[in-house]
Amino acid sequence: MWRLYQFPLCPFSRKVRLLLSEKGVGYELWRENPWDPSDGLWRLNAAGRTPVLEDSAKGIVLADSRAICEYFEETVDRAAMINGTAANRAEIRRLVALFDENFHGDVVAPLLHERMKKRLVLRQPPDSRVLREAMKLAHEHLEYIDWLVDTRAWLGGSTMSLADLAAAAQISVADYLGGIDWTGHEQSRGWYAVFKSRPSFRPLLTERMEVIQPPVHYAKVDG
Amino acid sequence: MWRLYQFPLCPFSRKVRLLLSEKGVGYELWRENPWDPSDGLWRLNAAGRTPVLEDSAKGIVLADSRAICEYFEETVDRAAMINGTAANRAEIRRLVALFDENFHGDVVAPLLHERMKKRLVLRQPPDSRVLREAMKLAHEHLEYIDWLVDTRAWLGGSTMSLADLAAAAQISVADYLGGIDWTGHEQSRGWYAVFKSRPSFRPLLTERMEVIQPPVHYAKVDG
Repeated sequence: MWRLYQFPLCPFSRKVRLLLSEKGVGYELWRENPWDPSDGLWRLNAAGRTPVLEDSAKGIVLADSRAICEYFEETVDRAAMINGTAANRAEIRRLVALFDENFHGDVVAPLLHERMKKRLVLRQPPDSRVLREAMKLAHEHLEYIDWLVDTRAWLGGSTMSLADLAAAAQISVADYLGGIDWTGHEQSRGWYAVFKSRPSFRPLLTERMEVIQPPVHYAKVDG
Repeated sequence: MWRLYQFPLCPFSRKVRLLLSEKGVGYELWRENPWDPSDGLWRLNAAGRTPVLEDSAKGIVLADSRAICEYFEETVDRAAMINGTAANRAEIRRLVALFDENFHGDVVAPLLHERMKKRLVLRQPPDSRVLREAMKLAHEHLEYIDWLVDTRAWLGGSTMSLADLAAAAQISVADYLGGIDWTGHEQSRGWYAVFKSRPSFRPLLTERMEVIQPPVHYAKVDG
């Protein structure tokens, strides 16, 4: 049985969870706090962060969310998520990197700092200037997703792919933290609503991170 | 013919250049400045950064260094760089992420800001506190590489892999900017010296970034 080291608002763990669920791979959750990684997590991952996936019976440890996704793409045929020609696959991986790095760095990382770490650890109020900037950049990213949805059946091409999972994972954390204003983004909202209704996504949407509550629309399929 | 959008001290472009050279894929260089990406670069890559690889005759555009490396791993058999079992391949990709994200974020990004951007764009002196912290973290990363070299033939396993290229690319930029003190890191130094002598690496070591000069040992094979 795989054990996933994660915390509820880790967008990279969410991407892995979506992939495992779509592929029908079972796992148990093991909680880590990103502001205080355990010695055990450091031993398993020199980067000291989630997600890490461990099968202690088989002696396999996987770290880094993209490496984990590639591993299951190579070993589990069901629900292929990096599909098509080499050029199609490069396009999917480009988008995964865009969401993992740019959407995360511009939007999710500042929201997690201001609305999670400051509340739970630093005991400081959020900086409204930083929040405004993150929401402004979220708006720009949603415009790009609107364009992708206008252009293609799914974000990465003609079928659902890891690009969709990566985007939904980041957006879901930003939405939980009140950083997404869907106004004017009907295409992105429609794509995300389809995604929210998937069985792989439902368990994520019902989890809560201690005292931090999401907005009312967060877990609603038509929200 | 592929055109690579890059700048001389972009470690991600360096990783791609090492891979293309090892695989025998020809390309031409196209200069971009990271502090002022051209409209053309933005059109090719929504992330607005190097490296981007374009074959305009075939209408192919590849962006994101890991997506680019996976593309050539899939399409060019020569010099396989993501080798072995699924677990071996996951280990190589974990290390690539460690060097791309942690080594870069801890060491290379602050050095580029302090010693390149402040000199060429902001016209400010470097912050010696930031430089000291980057060099301290470089020391910790080199300790980890020492351990890998003690444990394995190459960083990612029994053969040279993308993990070695990713590490060498980041280290070479840090070394150019005077951020690497090899004292006490004989294993890492030995591994890197082997790497510096490879034909794929020589052209990179002779390039210079405008007025910024590397230390004397930088391009020496026995440096």
